Amino acid sequence: MKLQPLDDRVLVKPLKPEEKTQGGIILPDTAKEKPQEGKVIAVGTDEDLQKVVKEGDIVLYAKFGGQETKVDGEDHLILSRSDILALIKS
Amino acid sequence: MKLQPLDDRVLVKPLKPEEKTQGGIILPDTAKEKPQEGKVIAVGTDEDLQKVVKEGDIVLYAKFGGQETKVDGEDHLILSRSDILALIKS
Amino acid sequence: MKLQPLDDRVLVKPLKPEEKTQGGIILPDTAKEKPQEGKVIAVGTDEDLQKVVKEGDIVLYAKFGGQETKVDGEDHLILSRSDILALIKS
Amino acid sequence: MKLQPLDDRVLVKPLKPEEKTQGGIILPDTAKEKPQEGKVIAVGTDEDLQKVVKEGDIVLYAKFGGQETKVDGEDHLILSRSDILALIKS
Amino acid sequence: MKLQPLDDRVLVKPLKPEEKTQGGIILPDTAKEKPQEGKVIAVGTDEDLQKVVKEGDIVLYAKFGGQETKVDGEDHLILSRSDILALIKS
Amino acid sequence: MKLQPLDDRVLVKPLKPEEKTQGGIILPDTAKEKPQEGKVIAVGTDEDLQKVVKEGDIVLYAKFGGQETKVDGEDHLILSRSDILALIKS
Amino acid sequence: MKLQPLDDRVLVKPLKPEEKTQGGIILPDTAKEKPQEGKVIAVGTDEDLQKVVKEGDIVLYAKFGGQETKVDGEDHLILSRSDILALIKS
Repeated sequence: MKLQPLDDRVLVKPLKPEEKTQGGIILPDTAKEKPQEGKVIAVGTDEDLQKVVKEGDIVLYAKFGGQETKVDGEDHLILSRSDILALIKS
Repeated sequence: MKLQPLDDRVLVKPLKPEEKTQGGIILPDTAKEKPQEGKVIAVGTDEDLQKVVKEGDIVLYAKFGGQETKVDGEDHLILSRSDILALIKS
Repeated sequence: MKLQPLDDRVLVKPLKPEEKTQGGIILPDTAKEKPQEGKVIAVGTDEDLQKVVKEGDIVLYAKFGGQETKVDGEDHLILSRSDILALIKS
Repeated sequence: MKLQPLDDRVLVKPLKPEEKTQGGIILPDTAKEKPQEGKVIAVGTDEDLQKVVKEGDIVLYAKFGGQETKVDGEDHLILSRSDILALIKS
Repeated sequence: MKLQPLDDRVLVKPLKPEEKTQGGIILPDTAKEKPQEGKVIAVGTDEDLQKVVKEGDIVLYAKFGGQETKVDGEDHLILSRSDILALIKS
Repeated sequence: MKLQPLDDRVLVKPLKPEEKTQGGIILPDTAKEKPQEGKVIAVGTDEDLQKVVKEGDIVLYAKFGGQETKVDGEDHLILSRSDILALIKS
Repeated sequence: MKLQPLDDRVLVKPLKPEEKTQGGIILPDTAKEKPQEGKVIAVGTDEDLQKVVKEGDIVLYAKFGGQETKVDGEDHLILSRSDILALIKS
């Protein structure tokens, strides 16, 4: 079972601090309003979106964007394209 | 008798918790603001919408979206396309 | 004499509860904010609208939409296309 | 001398109650917020508008729309296309 | 020296009451919120605008529209196209 | 060193009252909300804008528009195209 | 590791006052609301944007725009195209 986001939405699994890629972007614990990192689980049906965001990408997204949901008991977010600020390239 | 939604609207029958697909997405009872699951009963007249949402699909939708109505005595919702977050694939 | 709605508007005669189609959609008396049923008396001049809504159609519309007017002494509503939620097919 | 409305505007002379067409639409005196009837004196320069509204047409318009002006000492209104709800056909 | 309005703007010199064309539109002194008459001094650079408004035209404009400026010591207004309600034809 | 405005922006150096062109537009000292005159120092990258506004042009702009900045120690403004009301032709 | 901004966003590293280009634009310390200077670290995926802003460009941007983030422990901003006022050419 999986979620297929509609249109320009993206299903993201937020990365926990200990899972973050090393040597790179570090968000201070106290900065709750800072952008967050997440892994793209599924990309919406919009073809233009599919050209720039791929399943497995790590993205930086605006903290207060998106709708929370649970998949297999774990917290996920359904973001709009406009909530995604950047791709994190390793 | 049936409802044919106009334009980009979708008629949805909300799924009750006990009807939800197993092993998958679980919404805690206390999380009233979480997205809800529903079964698509009829898709609007918009041709582009008909390509991405089909009768019988299970969708995840924003809880506060849509207009409540009754069909054959049962609660239904008429959602706008933008209220639908994702399709739930089994 | 008749009203020809302009552009994407639709002239509707609200259905009284006793006139509603049987076995179908029932709106509880206490639910004043529920969508209402009406019969399409005239469709606006917009050609695209005329493809999806026809004179004589029964429509479900958002209760607080539209402008009230009287035709031959009876209450009518002039709705915008966006006020119409669905066509009721018998 | 006459007024030529610009773009999608329409110059309308409001009909007084006693001038209204018989047997047809009657607006109760107490319903000040009801749509009003008026005679089209001049149609704006917009070509698309000129296809659907003609000089001499009787129109129903939203009461609070338009800008009041005087032509030859008599009250007129300059409406926008979106203020016009319907044409009244006799 | 002269002002060349940019884009869809129109430079207008307001007509004083005694300068108004005779026999025509009369605005009561007490109706300060009524549309005003002015003479078009210069038309903006927008080509579509130049087809419908010409230098020398007398226009009726919404009283609270436009930006006041002075040209050669006299009050002028720089209106947007949307502030102009109608052309006054003699 | 110079500033190259992006897109539809225009870099303007406000004209001091004593620098204003003679015989022409005079803004009363007390009318702080009146449009201001400035000299165009650089035009944005938008090609359509470059057709109507040129470096060296004197423009009239809405007083409260734009973002203040300093170039070589002198006050400048970065205006949007929509802040510019007119070109002042000598 | 690096950030690839999405769509029309630009990753910028703010310039500290002592790093500013000499002889040029000087922002007074007390003017916190003045535009700021920054170096473009990465340009969004939008092709039209890539024609006007390049990696390594120095840009002037509206102070309150953008989302703060950290890259390799240093403060960066993810700006939208509309936050960028001008390119600073040396």
